[in-house]
Amino acid sequence: MLYFNSDYTEGAHPKILEQLQETNFRQTVGYGEDEYCEKARGLIREACGAPEAGVHFLVGGTQANFTVIRAALRPHQGVISPVTGHIHVHETGAVEATGHKVLALPCGAEGKLSAGQVAEVCAEHFAGSMPPEHMVQPKMVYLSHPTENGALYTKAELMAIRQVCDEYGLYLFVDGARMGYGLAARGTDVALTDLAQLCDVFYIGGTKCGALFGEAVVIPNRELNRDFRYAIKQNGGMLAKGRLLGLQFLTLFTDGLYTEICKKADEQAYRIAAACEEAGIETYAPSPTNQQFFIFPDSQLKKLEEKYVFSFWEKVDEGRTAVRICTSWATREEAVEELIADLKNLG
Amino acid sequence: MLYFNSDYTEGAHPKILEQLQETNFRQTVGYGEDEYCEKARGLIREACGAPEAGVHFLVGGTQANFTVIRAALRPHQGVISPVTGHIHVHETGAVEATGHKVLALPCGAEGKLSAGQVAEVCAEHFAGSMPPEHMVQPKMVYLSHPTENGALYTKAELMAIRQVCDEYGLYLFVDGARMGYGLAARGTDVALTDLAQLCDVFYIGGTKCGALFGEAVVIPNRELNRDFRYAIKQNGGMLAKGRLLGLQFLTLFTDGLYTEICKKADEQAYRIAAACEEAGIETYAPSPTNQQFFIFPDSQLKKLEEKYVFSFWEKVDEGRTAVRICTSWATREEAVEELIADLKNLG
Amino acid sequence: MLYFNSDYTEGAHPKILEQLQETNFRQTVGYGEDEYCEKARGLIREACGAPEAGVHFLVGGTQANFTVIRAALRPHQGVISPVTGHIHVHETGAVEATGHKVLALPCGAEGKLSAGQVAEVCAEHFAGSMPPEHMVQPKMVYLSHPTENGALYTKAELMAIRQVCDEYGLYLFVDGARMGYGLAARGTDVALTDLAQLCDVFYIGGTKCGALFGEAVVIPNRELNRDFRYAIKQNGGMLAKGRLLGLQFLTLFTDGLYTEICKKADEQAYRIAAACEEAGIETYAPSPTNQQFFIFPDSQLKKLEEKYVFSFWEKVDEGRTAVRICTSWATREEAVEELIADLKNLG
Amino acid sequence: MLYFNSDYTEGAHPKILEQLQETNFRQTVGYGEDEYCEKARGLIREACGAPEAGVHFLVGGTQANFTVIRAALRPHQGVISPVTGHIHVHETGAVEATGHKVLALPCGAEGKLSAGQVAEVCAEHFAGSMPPEHMVQPKMVYLSHPTENGALYTKAELMAIRQVCDEYGLYLFVDGARMGYGLAARGTDVALTDLAQLCDVFYIGGTKCGALFGEAVVIPNRELNRDFRYAIKQNGGMLAKGRLLGLQFLTLFTDGLYTEICKKADEQAYRIAAACEEAGIETYAPSPTNQQFFIFPDSQLKKLEEKYVFSFWEKVDEGRTAVRICTSWATREEAVEELIADLKNLG
Repeated sequence: MLYFNSDYTEGAHPKILEQLQETNFRQTVGYGEDEYCEKARGLIREACGAPEAGVHFLVGGTQANFTVIRAALRPHQGVISPVTGHIHVHETGAVEATGHKVLALPCGAEGKLSAGQVAEVCAEHFAGSMPPEHMVQPKMVYLSHPTENGALYTKAELMAIRQVCDEYGLYLFVDGARMGYGLAARGTDVALTDLAQLCDVFYIGGTKCGALFGEAVVIPNRELNRDFRYAIKQNGGMLAKGRLLGLQFLTLFTDGLYTEICKKADEQAYRIAAACEEAGIETYAPSPTNQQFFIFPDSQLKKLEEKYVFSFWEKVDEGRTAVRICTSWATREEAVEELIADLKNLG
Repeated sequence: MLYFNSDYTEGAHPKILEQLQETNFRQTVGYGEDEYCEKARGLIREACGAPEAGVHFLVGGTQANFTVIRAALRPHQGVISPVTGHIHVHETGAVEATGHKVLALPCGAEGKLSAGQVAEVCAEHFAGSMPPEHMVQPKMVYLSHPTENGALYTKAELMAIRQVCDEYGLYLFVDGARMGYGLAARGTDVALTDLAQLCDVFYIGGTKCGALFGEAVVIPNRELNRDFRYAIKQNGGMLAKGRLLGLQFLTLFTDGLYTEICKKADEQAYRIAAACEEAGIETYAPSPTNQQFFIFPDSQLKKLEEKYVFSFWEKVDEGRTAVRICTSWATREEAVEELIADLKNLG
Repeated sequence: MLYFNSDYTEGAHPKILEQLQETNFRQTVGYGEDEYCEKARGLIREACGAPEAGVHFLVGGTQANFTVIRAALRPHQGVISPVTGHIHVHETGAVEATGHKVLALPCGAEGKLSAGQVAEVCAEHFAGSMPPEHMVQPKMVYLSHPTENGALYTKAELMAIRQVCDEYGLYLFVDGARMGYGLAARGTDVALTDLAQLCDVFYIGGTKCGALFGEAVVIPNRELNRDFRYAIKQNGGMLAKGRLLGLQFLTLFTDGLYTEICKKADEQAYRIAAACEEAGIETYAPSPTNQQFFIFPDSQLKKLEEKYVFSFWEKVDEGRTAVRICTSWATREEAVEELIADLKNLG
Repeated sequence: MLYFNSDYTEGAHPKILEQLQETNFRQTVGYGEDEYCEKARGLIREACGAPEAGVHFLVGGTQANFTVIRAALRPHQGVISPVTGHIHVHETGAVEATGHKVLALPCGAEGKLSAGQVAEVCAEHFAGSMPPEHMVQPKMVYLSHPTENGALYTKAELMAIRQVCDEYGLYLFVDGARMGYGLAARGTDVALTDLAQLCDVFYIGGTKCGALFGEAVVIPNRELNRDFRYAIKQNGGMLAKGRLLGLQFLTLFTDGLYTEICKKADEQAYRIAAACEEAGIETYAPSPTNQQFFIFPDSQLKKLEEKYVFSFWEKVDEGRTAVRICTSWATREEAVEELIADLKNLG
């Protein structure tokens, strides 16, 4: 079977394994204070144009999400998220388990929040008819870029959200589990430097973008960075051999490897999407990144699934199903060609 | 001003103050193990037809809600609630602060959940397309009777919900902050004995039904009752002078006082509702209990609010506003008559 | 039986019941925003010489403790307490249940912390051999005045602790569940105004000092006062009929009632202590307040316990037992006289 | 510099890197449900003689500890630990952050709990003079094998603790972060099969015993295993590429690699210890495992530290310091020889 169901079906980019091999017997101090981590932090700060930002390496996305949120909020505060946000639906209530409510707002198929929605929630809370203390206080906006559905915010959209955050004293937190595929997308005007300017905290995903595992949390807001290492340790994210994380991000941020391998995956996704469109398959949600969402007639899907694994997304109606087709840094050209050929012969 | 905005604007039924006065200098042991508490527990068990049920006295509704939920659930489990449920909107995230997600389901103006909704959520979780462990496990149904909007479940509706709970291993928890007004309502077929048979845990509200404060938590499910006193203490609900709670419920459950005073309030509410209807005021949500919801033209409302205090509920449209008009055990006949007269003269 | 086991065996001071009676049918707004609360806040601010301090009324001591601590600390921070501190031993882990470690330090029979101990813990944490982030960060000092064992801090001791708190950025939180008995004690040089100057937050106990229930939390540190009402609501401490708390503290702080009734109890305690000493009973821990601790030969104790209830404290050795003898605002003169007479005839 | 300060200064055993390399481009499902994990589970169950035990792979020790404890306990329950236990001192209050108190008991230099201590705590709680609900209920015993100080329990000691656990309904949880060095130690009579019989849950450490990272949690008690995957996900321990954990344990449990590499480290440690003893260096705490604790005169230590890195343990007195000397699966023979030679020439 050929897996197009997700972007974590293989190990890591070969250069990462090579580095692990090469440095295996060097002795370093633990807990992320080794030289690999230090160098990786430097490269990331440089790429973000944020020489003062805190940079910390965590193991996975759920961990990064709840660690950041728990560290930032006081007990009576909550985090605004689109209703499709990963923290709201697919993390087993990890945020609530730290004591904080996710204030979920409706969103369209793209999975994006708007500045207007955030403003409305805040206005209602801080200047509504009820005394505010009977309700959870909104204090953070959580969004993912790309979203769960592969969509991207424009720079203008992010700036508008930032403005509302400033008005009401909210933090802006961007989940970048698939950041690489977003940065490398055609037509995007959002760069790492923009995120570093607009966010209080965000992360650059490794797990889905070429690393074995790992997320680089960047914290431009110095107030949130204070004591963050305590938060990492308390929440189980401080690897004894922190060097493993440093080394991976060092490799990914050397010679533009991170963007390069994600760009390749985006391009493969576009070709698959084009083939779907040519074959008359309906788009579920448009996406400029490595995740593509299409609505297949069940008969055609059944045939394809004899050979390919996709990710079930939704039963759209009697007879049709939305699936996610996913490429990654590891997707082989031959697999893409084969899928495209089979899409052409669907009819 | 005459307050019709809520059912907690006065102190307590005079018989309760009388009892406090009379017993003031008797010395008792603390923490709810005195004779008044014991007697009150006995009367409540009797009224519920549940001789084996645990009965505990807590101070308030929010406290009762999060103490019960925290004691019952394991960390990965959540509680299903209508989107208008008090725990979801008006308790400052107290349930989430104990680590548990509120799984909020849409509901109509009555604020009721249906058995079908619960079944659907459970089916999706336990037999859906995703591995369940990525999502919060539904383990409890929370509903209020009367609901936030004054509505009542029928016995058949509660039995249907109970059946779904049995099928999926869920607890049924009924918030009875206004229980008295529900039990005394015209046309209801739900008695305390039914609640004791159908619920794993529920409470009988004192604060809004004649007591200074206090909620009597009844736990027919012995498993949930185990170690519940630890939960009360840990969550700040164990009064040193627990006798105060016992004495109040002892008074309320002697000679049918609880139902009697709530019935009076319901009847007053019906008369006000009838006057509204006669005056052509539109019903917002029908209610057989002490809370009545009507949509007033703003001009009429403004006039009434020179003399009466109602509770703002919602801006329905340009020019009209929904308000709650609330009676209670303490509402004076003269105040009701005056309001009815003024409603008649609204036009 | 005559109860000398605790200071919460009766109801409330008659003036409080009188006020409850008198105001019972007045209609007020809820949640502590009524005029009685406002007036009580004013009197307390005045008594504290702290016109800007936040003043909030909570229901009980455990609730006050964990609500204050949870509101003040970030997740990786802990609270220093003597090993006998109420939060460490007798609150069912309520502080830990909010996520915070109690950093318990050894103490003598008086139950007091010293400034030196606090300084040592902080020096070890912030400048020790381990990276601090592997350990809980000390951020608050919790102490009770009077202590669990009836002892009092001197003003100089509190000032020294304050100084260490300032040096390391710690909050000072004083549990005043029995504050009245401390303020009224012979020989103390600590007044309410001192506490208001030295503490970030403290509370003035009502439950054990003449009220039915209630603790007045005073927050001179404005930073900690921010959003504190959210914390009260979230933790179940916001009474719908908040007026009940306001009214009680209004009564206690009118015409010096609070100090007057506690002073009487202290004087009774001194006379009982003197009688014990005359009878050759060994002191367990010296106390200038309403709790007295003596070590009785078991044979004598057994005889006394036919008529009196004391509080078991510790089995000191084969044949001797330490007990607490407690007076309160409610202790009758005749009971004291009777006990003194029986102590005289012990031999 | 030669590092003898800890057992996590290098990467992983070469066979593990080899396996990562070889399987890198195979596509697997995520979240620990791949074939490598399945096989590793099988080997571990076999090694434990526990065909029905749950086996789960977590990322690190702190995470394993708080995930297990949180999943097992109800909110009012706590975990008994020696005062030197890792959960009590070096995990930034991670257990308390999940809401549970660590009930820390004194212990000697070896860092071991005794059955008698546990029995005493339980007797005091469940049959003491106080109503138990005012205190945290002991529900689990946590101990590490080897302990933080390198010591091992005997089978008889563990059986005695198990017996007390059975008597009071407590879970027994063994932290095996350095399990390999314990299993391979000279003279131990505790095998994996014993742990599987005696514990409700324990883990087999990978991070310090040859893996890049990872701990294999074994849960013989089926009740605790129920829904454990939810707990892993909620607490951030479920790696998207779970195969990485499976593959590592598969390698370690193939052909006895795990025991073999730990045995080598133990033997090296014994030789270093012998050299210390010959050089007249005082033992701090006797240890049959890879961690050795010696008290050096500061002058000698200073000289050694020009070339070697040890781990500071304690300032024993003016002029002498206790250090930990640590070998591991990665320690080179030449480094050991060099250290031994330098110890000989200390004088």
